[in-house]
Amino acid sequence: MQFPKGLITIDKNSHVAVYLQIANGIISHIRRGILKPSAALPASRILAADLKVHRKTVVAAYDELYAQSWVDAYPRKGIFVAKNLPDVSPRKITTGIQSYSYPEETFFEIANDKFPSLALSVKSPEHNLVFNDGFPDTRLAPVELMVREYRRFARYHFTSKYLMYGPEQGSENLRTELARFFGETRGLQVKPENILITKGVQMALYLIAQLLLTKNDTVIVADPGYNGANEVFEQAGANLALVPIDEHGININHIEAICKKKKVKLVYVIPHHHSPTTVTLSAERRMQLLELARKYKFAIVEDDYDYDFHYASSPILPLASIDYYGSVIYVGSFSKTIAPGIRMGFMIAPKNLIARATRFRKLIDRQGEQLLEEAMANLLKNGDISRHLKKANKIYHERRDILCRLLQEKLNGSVNFKIPDGGFAVWVEYLNGLKPQEVSAKAATMGLTISNGKDYYHDPAYLNNCIRIGFASLNPNELEAAVDILAKAVISLS
Amino acid sequence: MQFPKGLITIDKNSHVAVYLQIANGIISHIRRGILKPSAALPASRILAADLKVHRKTVVAAYDELYAQSWVDAYPRKGIFVAKNLPDVSPRKITTGIQSYSYPEETFFEIANDKFPSLALSVKSPEHNLVFNDGFPDTRLAPVELMVREYRRFARYHFTSKYLMYGPEQGSENLRTELARFFGETRGLQVKPENILITKGVQMALYLIAQLLLTKNDTVIVADPGYNGANEVFEQAGANLALVPIDEHGININHIEAICKKKKVKLVYVIPHHHSPTTVTLSAERRMQLLELARKYKFAIVEDDYDYDFHYASSPILPLASIDYYGSVIYVGSFSKTIAPGIRMGFMIAPKNLIARATRFRKLIDRQGEQLLEEAMANLLKNGDISRHLKKANKIYHERRDILCRLLQEKLNGSVNFKIPDGGFAVWVEYLNGLKPQEVSAKAATMGLTISNGKDYYHDPAYLNNCIRIGFASLNPNELEAAVDILAKAVISLS
Repeated sequence: MQFPKGLITIDKNSHVAVYLQIANGIISHIRRGILKPSAALPASRILAADLKVHRKTVVAAYDELYAQSWVDAYPRKGIFVAKNLPDVSPRKITTGIQSYSYPEETFFEIANDKFPSLALSVKSPEHNLVFNDGFPDTRLAPVELMVREYRRFARYHFTSKYLMYGPEQGSENLRTELARFFGETRGLQVKPENILITKGVQMALYLIAQLLLTKNDTVIVADPGYNGANEVFEQAGANLALVPIDEHGININHIEAICKKKKVKLVYVIPHHHSPTTVTLSAERRMQLLELARKYKFAIVEDDYDYDFHYASSPILPLASIDYYGSVIYVGSFSKTIAPGIRMGFMIAPKNLIARATRFRKLIDRQGEQLLEEAMANLLKNGDISRHLKKANKIYHERRDILCRLLQEKLNGSVNFKIPDGGFAVWVEYLNGLKPQEVSAKAATMGLTISNGKDYYHDPAYLNNCIRIGFASLNPNELEAAVDILAKAVISLS
Repeated sequence: MQFPKGLITIDKNSHVAVYLQIANGIISHIRRGILKPSAALPASRILAADLKVHRKTVVAAYDELYAQSWVDAYPRKGIFVAKNLPDVSPRKITTGIQSYSYPEETFFEIANDKFPSLALSVKSPEHNLVFNDGFPDTRLAPVELMVREYRRFARYHFTSKYLMYGPEQGSENLRTELARFFGETRGLQVKPENILITKGVQMALYLIAQLLLTKNDTVIVADPGYNGANEVFEQAGANLALVPIDEHGININHIEAICKKKKVKLVYVIPHHHSPTTVTLSAERRMQLLELARKYKFAIVEDDYDYDFHYASSPILPLASIDYYGSVIYVGSFSKTIAPGIRMGFMIAPKNLIARATRFRKLIDRQGEQLLEEAMANLLKNGDISRHLKKANKIYHERRDILCRLLQEKLNGSVNFKIPDGGFAVWVEYLNGLKPQEVSAKAATMGLTISNGKDYYHDPAYLNNCIRIGFASLNPNELEAAVDILAKAVISLS
């Protein structure tokens, strides 16, 4: 009887039935080469006594092993490990399946050193007060509206339809409502067929990069700029051409100079409240950029992620709203409208590109969340989104003004900034040799998390003394407390 | 006064304020080159009379244009189109911005002919009765459980935390619950750090293919097999090596023969209720496959998408549960547990691969739906998922038996099949020269949608006479009615 005692351990508190624990334990020993092919298993009576369980439990375990073809059963002879199993050289003997530990590393090679450098999100800051990069206040998120919609779904018969596989391009109802919404808010005369629903702007950018770019293609981006886009373009094999940005937006002459030297495949712009600088691309430069796109046949990716949050006059209509030639791919998001954690974005382009992008999206992810998309369609249709935007804009407008006033009052002479037209953050320059990293370190000791100025510039040689200060997610009291700490930190360093 | 009459049309029923309609109309004419730089705009009084609006409305429109820098204003001279705008050659004159039509095609080139062949989902069938490929019954989906969780979120203060950006790897709570669930149901001793939450199996496969494969790598798949996986591997540049599958699963000797001839990077298996054939990979072959992985250093992708739906004895424990070397990447889904439209899957692998995959997932999609993930964590924790699975298994088990009995009674001699151990479909072979395409076409005329036998085999030369008949989404009456039609269609073709 080659069946060492103590090989099977039983955990009576486990949710797994005891007979299955026994069967799984034996399987584990077979797989590890401890129990060899054709080896006899103990009679059920004996194993039951060993394990202090009822004989019927062991019989059930053996039945299970037989059903799974791990053992052969011969009448009047007994139960044997199946003879046709491969002979495995024994591995470390441990007691019970519980002690098996999952491997630390893959045995196979991971082909390339792909994506090793992407930063993962930082852990939640330890401090109560956080000047973030510019996120909406999730306390204002219209969760109750979403819940109302989900509650409706629970009641209605049609809901089962939305639980099946659905259109990869996104809900037809949502795309219809979006086409109307974009017409009203952005002068964009598109049809539902021109819209692909994505998981946030990020997926839209990924799809575009993979579809349009091949190795060593040139992509123009502003520096400082948006990391999340730069990474996507570089991962697709593109070389970034960095262009400076000033108070009127990305430098168009610089773009044309590059176009004259080499083929440019794609120009990425954030025309409103550019991240990180918050500047808006001027009407003049918008027209120039469209003309350049026509002349040099590049694609413009217009990332208008926070168009709906604008506090000064109206936002300038998107480049896409007057794109006669089909040069512009327009991307945006509802992640700022509802909450960052609700991933819903869109990509607007001529049909031929949307068709390709839809097929590709299917490969990655099959489809979006239909219930979420239907909920959003309803909220757009009955005006809830517009009402929420109006309310949120009022609050964020106030918070922007409060932060700017506080910075002026309490950090006068130490910082310089321009009041942004919209969005969720102010781009602040430190004066008098103050270093973002030192201010950040000092503020941390006083209970405030604030940017250390890193990662805004793609060019590592650039000595940056600017940071983004997000105002949207802090209420007036919190803004006051946070600026107080910042002012103390700055004074202590001056 | 170069301002043609009738250029601006006003839609009083539009949601867009009239002053904005006027401003946008003028911008449109500037952008189209109809209004040239430095051109004078009509006095507000005159334009107001033309448009039959109050003069203040035109003044508001001009203020808007000035704020957006489209016009210059000179005291006592009037309003002029900004002089520094580029001079655009005039395009087609149309009336009002409303008549602008969005371009049909992109002006730039789409780099490669990427993903042109991927099939998009077929439209909803017109018939009431559908034998689908094997999907759960969405009428049984526990929508009320999901709604209960969302309702909880609406009440609790902590909810705002889950609305912010969160961990790219997926909710910590969910991964903790999953680690426990996998231990209990699959003998998988993994930690939360070994789990990446994805949008369904599809995204897990996409991430794996992109991370592991480079151009011309060899990937072994069964033929017939799962299209959705084959497309992902081919898109990553791999060459597929097709291996036959029999009643015990994929042919292991055939795999070894290929390994002897060339470097194999990855072997893709569906060990339970293989799609489309429904066969289960035998215990013997599982062990052989693990030995081969160790010998030839390939990765095994184990797609156990419907492990939780098994009606005969217990399912065989996953390869991953006894993977000593780190050869196995285990992927699965909750899309079948809740509903296909709820996209939630997982990938289990050693930490080094999970870390890479997490970074890559961030690039594509940033993160999953945190609220959905937290809801799922709660449902797993309080046993709701297990209870739902038990209930659903009982119902699907019955439906499988009913379909098999009906096929035996009413199509005896015309079809051949093996009762599947689990899953959602039966793999049925037509006899007597019956052709799937003809049966499908005939059934369609009688009100039943049923597979035409296409797309199961990757090898187009294979003359397939088998189809999948999904039983899970039809209740007993529907199953009876559907088989009645199928039997009539078959008789009329015999």
